[in-house]
Amino acid sequence: MRDESIFDLDKLNEECGVFAIFGHPDAARLTYYGLHALQHRGQESAGIVASDGKKFCVHRGTGLVTEVFQNETIDKLKGHVAIGHVRYSTTGGTGLVNAQPLVFNYANGELAVATNGNLVNGQRLRRELEESGSILQTSTDTEVIAHFIARSQKETLVEKVKEALSYVIGAYALLILTNDELIVALDPHSLRPFSMALLGDAYVFSSETCAFDVIGAEFLREIEPGEMLILNRDGIKSIRFTQPQPKAICSFEYIYFARPDSDISGINVHAARKRLGRKLFEEAPIEADVVTGVPDSSISAAIGFAEAAHIPYELGLIKNRYVGRTFIQPTQELREQGVKMKLSAVRKVVEGKRVVMVDDSIVRGTTSRKIVNLLREAGAIEVHVRISSPPVINPCYYGIDTADRKELIAATHKVEEIRQAINADSLAFLSVEGMLEAIGRPVGDKNRGHCLACFTGEYPTVIESEHEYVKVLEGKR
Amino acid sequence: MRDESIFDLDKLNEECGVFAIFGHPDAARLTYYGLHALQHRGQESAGIVASDGKKFCVHRGTGLVTEVFQNETIDKLKGHVAIGHVRYSTTGGTGLVNAQPLVFNYANGELAVATNGNLVNGQRLRRELEESGSILQTSTDTEVIAHFIARSQKETLVEKVKEALSYVIGAYALLILTNDELIVALDPHSLRPFSMALLGDAYVFSSETCAFDVIGAEFLREIEPGEMLILNRDGIKSIRFTQPQPKAICSFEYIYFARPDSDISGINVHAARKRLGRKLFEEAPIEADVVTGVPDSSISAAIGFAEAAHIPYELGLIKNRYVGRTFIQPTQELREQGVKMKLSAVRKVVEGKRVVMVDDSIVRGTTSRKIVNLLREAGAIEVHVRISSPPVINPCYYGIDTADRKELIAATHKVEEIRQAINADSLAFLSVEGMLEAIGRPVGDKNRGHCLACFTGEYPTVIESEHEYVKVLEGKR
Amino acid sequence: MRDESIFDLDKLNEECGVFAIFGHPDAARLTYYGLHALQHRGQESAGIVASDGKKFCVHRGTGLVTEVFQNETIDKLKGHVAIGHVRYSTTGGTGLVNAQPLVFNYANGELAVATNGNLVNGQRLRRELEESGSILQTSTDTEVIAHFIARSQKETLVEKVKEALSYVIGAYALLILTNDELIVALDPHSLRPFSMALLGDAYVFSSETCAFDVIGAEFLREIEPGEMLILNRDGIKSIRFTQPQPKAICSFEYIYFARPDSDISGINVHAARKRLGRKLFEEAPIEADVVTGVPDSSISAAIGFAEAAHIPYELGLIKNRYVGRTFIQPTQELREQGVKMKLSAVRKVVEGKRVVMVDDSIVRGTTSRKIVNLLREAGAIEVHVRISSPPVINPCYYGIDTADRKELIAATHKVEEIRQAINADSLAFLSVEGMLEAIGRPVGDKNRGHCLACFTGEYPTVIESEHEYVKVLEGKR
Amino acid sequence: MRDESIFDLDKLNEECGVFAIFGHPDAARLTYYGLHALQHRGQESAGIVASDGKKFCVHRGTGLVTEVFQNETIDKLKGHVAIGHVRYSTTGGTGLVNAQPLVFNYANGELAVATNGNLVNGQRLRRELEESGSILQTSTDTEVIAHFIARSQKETLVEKVKEALSYVIGAYALLILTNDELIVALDPHSLRPFSMALLGDAYVFSSETCAFDVIGAEFLREIEPGEMLILNRDGIKSIRFTQPQPKAICSFEYIYFARPDSDISGINVHAARKRLGRKLFEEAPIEADVVTGVPDSSISAAIGFAEAAHIPYELGLIKNRYVGRTFIQPTQELREQGVKMKLSAVRKVVEGKRVVMVDDSIVRGTTSRKIVNLLREAGAIEVHVRISSPPVINPCYYGIDTADRKELIAATHKVEEIRQAINADSLAFLSVEGMLEAIGRPVGDKNRGHCLACFTGEYPTVIESEHEYVKVLEGKR
Repeated sequence: MRDESIFDLDKLNEECGVFAIFGHPDAARLTYYGLHALQHRGQESAGIVASDGKKFCVHRGTGLVTEVFQNETIDKLKGHVAIGHVRYSTTGGTGLVNAQPLVFNYANGELAVATNGNLVNGQRLRRELEESGSILQTSTDTEVIAHFIARSQKETLVEKVKEALSYVIGAYALLILTNDELIVALDPHSLRPFSMALLGDAYVFSSETCAFDVIGAEFLREIEPGEMLILNRDGIKSIRFTQPQPKAICSFEYIYFARPDSDISGINVHAARKRLGRKLFEEAPIEADVVTGVPDSSISAAIGFAEAAHIPYELGLIKNRYVGRTFIQPTQELREQGVKMKLSAVRKVVEGKRVVMVDDSIVRGTTSRKIVNLLREAGAIEVHVRISSPPVINPCYYGIDTADRKELIAATHKVEEIRQAINADSLAFLSVEGMLEAIGRPVGDKNRGHCLACFTGEYPTVIESEHEYVKVLEGKR
Repeated sequence: MRDESIFDLDKLNEECGVFAIFGHPDAARLTYYGLHALQHRGQESAGIVASDGKKFCVHRGTGLVTEVFQNETIDKLKGHVAIGHVRYSTTGGTGLVNAQPLVFNYANGELAVATNGNLVNGQRLRRELEESGSILQTSTDTEVIAHFIARSQKETLVEKVKEALSYVIGAYALLILTNDELIVALDPHSLRPFSMALLGDAYVFSSETCAFDVIGAEFLREIEPGEMLILNRDGIKSIRFTQPQPKAICSFEYIYFARPDSDISGINVHAARKRLGRKLFEEAPIEADVVTGVPDSSISAAIGFAEAAHIPYELGLIKNRYVGRTFIQPTQELREQGVKMKLSAVRKVVEGKRVVMVDDSIVRGTTSRKIVNLLREAGAIEVHVRISSPPVINPCYYGIDTADRKELIAATHKVEEIRQAINADSLAFLSVEGMLEAIGRPVGDKNRGHCLACFTGEYPTVIESEHEYVKVLEGKR
Repeated sequence: MRDESIFDLDKLNEECGVFAIFGHPDAARLTYYGLHALQHRGQESAGIVASDGKKFCVHRGTGLVTEVFQNETIDKLKGHVAIGHVRYSTTGGTGLVNAQPLVFNYANGELAVATNGNLVNGQRLRRELEESGSILQTSTDTEVIAHFIARSQKETLVEKVKEALSYVIGAYALLILTNDELIVALDPHSLRPFSMALLGDAYVFSSETCAFDVIGAEFLREIEPGEMLILNRDGIKSIRFTQPQPKAICSFEYIYFARPDSDISGINVHAARKRLGRKLFEEAPIEADVVTGVPDSSISAAIGFAEAAHIPYELGLIKNRYVGRTFIQPTQELREQGVKMKLSAVRKVVEGKRVVMVDDSIVRGTTSRKIVNLLREAGAIEVHVRISSPPVINPCYYGIDTADRKELIAATHKVEEIRQAINADSLAFLSVEGMLEAIGRPVGDKNRGHCLACFTGEYPTVIESEHEYVKVLEGKR
Repeated sequence: MRDESIFDLDKLNEECGVFAIFGHPDAARLTYYGLHALQHRGQESAGIVASDGKKFCVHRGTGLVTEVFQNETIDKLKGHVAIGHVRYSTTGGTGLVNAQPLVFNYANGELAVATNGNLVNGQRLRRELEESGSILQTSTDTEVIAHFIARSQKETLVEKVKEALSYVIGAYALLILTNDELIVALDPHSLRPFSMALLGDAYVFSSETCAFDVIGAEFLREIEPGEMLILNRDGIKSIRFTQPQPKAICSFEYIYFARPDSDISGINVHAARKRLGRKLFEEAPIEADVVTGVPDSSISAAIGFAEAAHIPYELGLIKNRYVGRTFIQPTQELREQGVKMKLSAVRKVVEGKRVVMVDDSIVRGTTSRKIVNLLREAGAIEVHVRISSPPVINPCYYGIDTADRKELIAATHKVEEIRQAINADSLAFLSVEGMLEAIGRPVGDKNRGHCLACFTGEYPTVIESEHEYVKVLEGKR
């Protein structure tokens, strides 16, 4: 689970969370609580669009959900249906412009669109749209999808959306709202988690199930790969907008992104993490005095490791929870004098001890080295690093902000080299097989239910290269 | 460790944290980091006073440290010495006026005062001051102390402070700053934690040692009961301003208030909490499937319990970290529909399970009942509550915001009655002896090193009653 | 001159001001000062786009120029060219979305567009764009123009802009910025004022000349009707994008909108207003004791009237300058008790006096009645209202927010009826001929240099009706 | 009338405005409107204290009235009595601490105090208080008065206040509030304006009468010199707290400070200013083409001058109204390039003309020179400066922030030297006699009803020097 520390440069970062509710008089307020529960999926901006069946009310802003919305703003968002979005903080992007849901006027009226995910061919489609006279105001794939909807000559919105989705390749949990209907769709591989629930008579949709618990909604089921749900005054209808594909849920959702109290495909994330920790001890046992996890995302795995190892789990590392966007960073001079803000090692816990430090992943390795050194400075006599995921050696094209391949330390270094680089006494990663077994998915298909691309290079979709590209608007204008 | 959830009505709450640094060119900025590490001790307001030897620079405000201070504010706080304060959110107080450090003009120039603690005879002294023509602008004991300093006819500031402290009874970690010196003092019983450290040549003082780790300062020792330290251009000098008294450190600092990475009297707080949990299992064992702690303060005790019990520790309860002062509270209607913001139970973890729920204390019992019910609604088949402290049956007069005695559920109900009230299958508290053994203090003196007043009624100081009061200003005006 | 009182419901209100500078290292900062001088033309939002030749820096926000921009924001707006815009507060529009300059990505890169004015056929063109698959995010005509530019198949930007402007009918002072060039254009009738100046080597463009004075720029000339200026690394070039048309400058710019220190077509606005007042006395003389103007826009005319009449000009009405957007409106109850915020009559000045109250216009008549009554309550024994413009009887289609025709009191009532409605002892409007003579334009062409549509119904352009509309995109897609 | 331009370094500046209302259910809201009307008297901070008879509600803040108060803040200020204060922006003072009304706890409960004015012996009394053990938290004279009230051994509050006022020398319009009564007092010379009015049954008090007009209150009379009014449940009572002294109202209230729509001693300020202008022409006639006033305070005088001279009054100088605290100041570089923000000359009006520039005063002369040069740069061929007050040659000790004597240009230079310094073609000041005649006070007593100290050096009170000082607390402690 990622939290408010927006300084985690050495972590994989996801692109967003979506939430929707259809058929509740307090739709916007519930969406607020839903987004709040999804806050860990994006802290750059938040937005809600509500419809009362006649017109949209929109509010978006940069910052946390609690910063963007006040009671008065929520009160103004009237209507029985609302969709919401939290967006991850990308560097350099001009914040507010990209805040979702995006709202458009097109020939049939108002249209709001929000997505969690990333298109493999988003840049190409964008270029094609611009070349044919379209104007794009954001740098989001969401806007690309909206333009294809607007350009479609099909009769109904559902048909328009189907046509638009026929052009796009990638990962997306998608919400489309008009004043008449709500359309919900998930990419053909189910790369992003996306579930539905019932709150009384109202349908609720969320990137993670933790948002259902918060509002007291009852989990129904996950959205299926390639499924589209249409909700309007006639009720709810499910269709397939594409051929069924093998499921390929992002495995990093289990390892790191999702909240531990969420379930994905029926598997509780915290429990999966504990099993990852247990399996990690089985694969790479070690004698030590204490086990500590890197807060917050690795705590579950560390406890699992400690249980399996019969070594006490201790709080050897403490995270300062109050670091936020307004925090005054230490000057370089103070930093050199030892001022550290985010993470502290607890001397009393680690001094004179052999410490197992469990972390969920290593991306560039820079942070790992710092944490190992924190522990050593606090008196640890040995530091054994155990990573509850396999080495990340390939970039993600589905919405995870991985470093470039050349920055991925495991792509260019052997485990022993990494161990030296991070100054650990020993280092072990979990195996891909061990990970799959721990998470607990049925074995069988290509990706065995998960997307493993960042570990194995087996991408569930085509990864488009320039020459094979065919203009989708050809002959259409 | 208390965190930003300011909705914890059913917890004991402490009154503040103090931090000071003497002899560093970046004194105010380091104080900022120190206060930041002490943020859990007070979230209502924060303030820093810096002196360059000629004049004060002051900045105070309501809110979190990160809200009160920006880079520019810190830049303006010039000087080699600074003192800072974070204040707990009391209901109803007019915020900014009471923000500390308080700054006064008196005959000898500028004076800044900050305290962590509470006077037993504060109200009486205040009344006496007012009757003799003083004007008080705040409702703080700190101002009372300042007035006695100003009224003292002694020659030196140290003598004035000694006179002032001779009138007051209670708990206080005290900081007094002029443009010439910094005076640091601790009450005769050491009721509040207070330590010193070195950062290069600079002396650092803090309510908790976690602030030292953050700025890279080296722990020296605790301030002694009744000790006064005077720092000025002649160096540092330690004196006693009163007869030595047996130590009586607030035991709730170990149980609940302090950050787990702080040490008090050489004992690490997290480790003490784990031992409390272990001892709790020894005293009140139970068969169950999972152990869960109430986040955040009870996690350590829960892990200790789980280790001793050989029952898996799981995240059965999740706290939403983003709840803050700007959070929009659910309407009553939504609350009844099940919207819950602060704490969620994790269905996958507790469903069909016998759950041990470890908490650090029960004050009124209202929250405990809610949490037990959360677990039951999420499917727990049994909920066994284990409290890692003895029953709280007496009010605190030393700065802890306990409920009135009649609101303390344990003061008026037997354990079995409480069990029924909170809807638990079983309930056990830790014994006083067990607590002392777990924390690990040497046995021997009256309070065995701790203040146990809230558990036993043995108050380390006189608790003043009206008739025995003698006016301290009598014959002085 | 309109000022910050955004409560002037009974005034005509204009839609914006534009400012640009090309070739100055501090382009954005100068644009800030320029917009600041144009603040009276729009208080809803403000925006600046700067280009350093490679990329745009954009900042827009709702509120006054001083609220939208801080030093740091301006510092980030790097580049030698900048365009800026202030927008009038329309009711109901979703503020920020419509803030200009609008910025787009199109096939050739970044494009920023800002306009002052209004298209007669804007709604029609918008519908056509949407029908052919375009998505519009704002409700501005500016976006319509941008879409036609993006859709044009012409080679160069200048050609694209010319094509786009060939479709639009109406009033516009237009700024178009790319990273390569700045294009400036004025509608074929010069309905909006638009001038250019030199600041050292830099070219400056502004809706009003007052912005030149503020930055010390030297007035060069007005932009000609139908002129387009292209500024890039090759210098400045002027072309005509349309057939020359007779000038038709909005006469209300002289009467009310423009700042008194601006010149339009070589005529100083304050001086013109004084002449309007003088002429008004000539046409409708009256015996009285004092002349007072309705602040702020009618002061000049009132002084002119007083001079011609040899009646003392006095401050009989006072405007409270501090009323702004954050002002707490009186409750209905207090209003009825006589609390008045915006305008007060000065009893000492008007008590027992025959008062001439000069105002610049009457739209609905509601405010006039209130002011007359204010004067009577303060003791005026006679109130003679003199209006320094002819009766407004037709709506404006060129960017002035007139009421609907049926709300224009002069469209449906005779002067005597209006006099009764506003409770005046006498009432007179200036004649159209008198107005033209006072302003001082050469007589000769159809509109005699001015747009008189709101007085006479003679619109300088076609006012489009449904049946004569031809789709401009026909056969183009 | 001073307005929001807080950059007027070359003007005399006053220290505050006070407003109170007793006996109205919406007391705080009406105080808000009253303070709003007095905003020109102080823009640094604003505050209101309301009492419901049991306890105070207090809100103070830095900034304009509209910035300090929102609807919710006002709603919380419950009670039938309220007092308010606006404070002038002194440089360097720590804003919020000095914001009034000051609120104290003293032996008899809550006490709020607000003053407009300045004590001659404030610093001395402050020192004495501190030496006898008092602590002062602000740098205001108001706090000094409060301390003497608190220290008084008299029985009733009225007696305590009388004792306190017996020690102080200077100018003050004073408001004192407890939960039982409101006390209103004016210094023995009536140096500050202070009036009372009726709003229904409620009594209203204000520094200026313009605040009465705004809330619809009916002017009753001015507070008398040395008068004290006591309002409580028994009604209203007037007493004298001191021997009657000749009135000495600050003449600069007429010249510059007060709003033109206020009346002082029955004389309308605008009318007085026009007479000052007329008299100025009589005393120092000149041939010229246009008369212009320096906005805003000199407009009335300029119109009077123009009327007397039969020279047209024109807007030759324009003030930018939107300059406020958030305004981005031009860089030095841009300033040198001619960027000017506050005041612009109108070229069309002054070019080729002989201009009379009427201003209300010259303090240091620096601004005058700048304005003359503005006019010359805009083409004026002659600039004749006429000042509607006599030369200021002595400092004020009664609350006006005059420069030190050595900075007063007229104290050290002859008129001809000043003329040269400000680069004018001619320069004339009004004579003291002419001023008195124009304002219209009856001649007779020492100061002829006005304080003329800054012009003549005749101070209406003792101006204390060190040796004649007697400690007022001697033998009292």
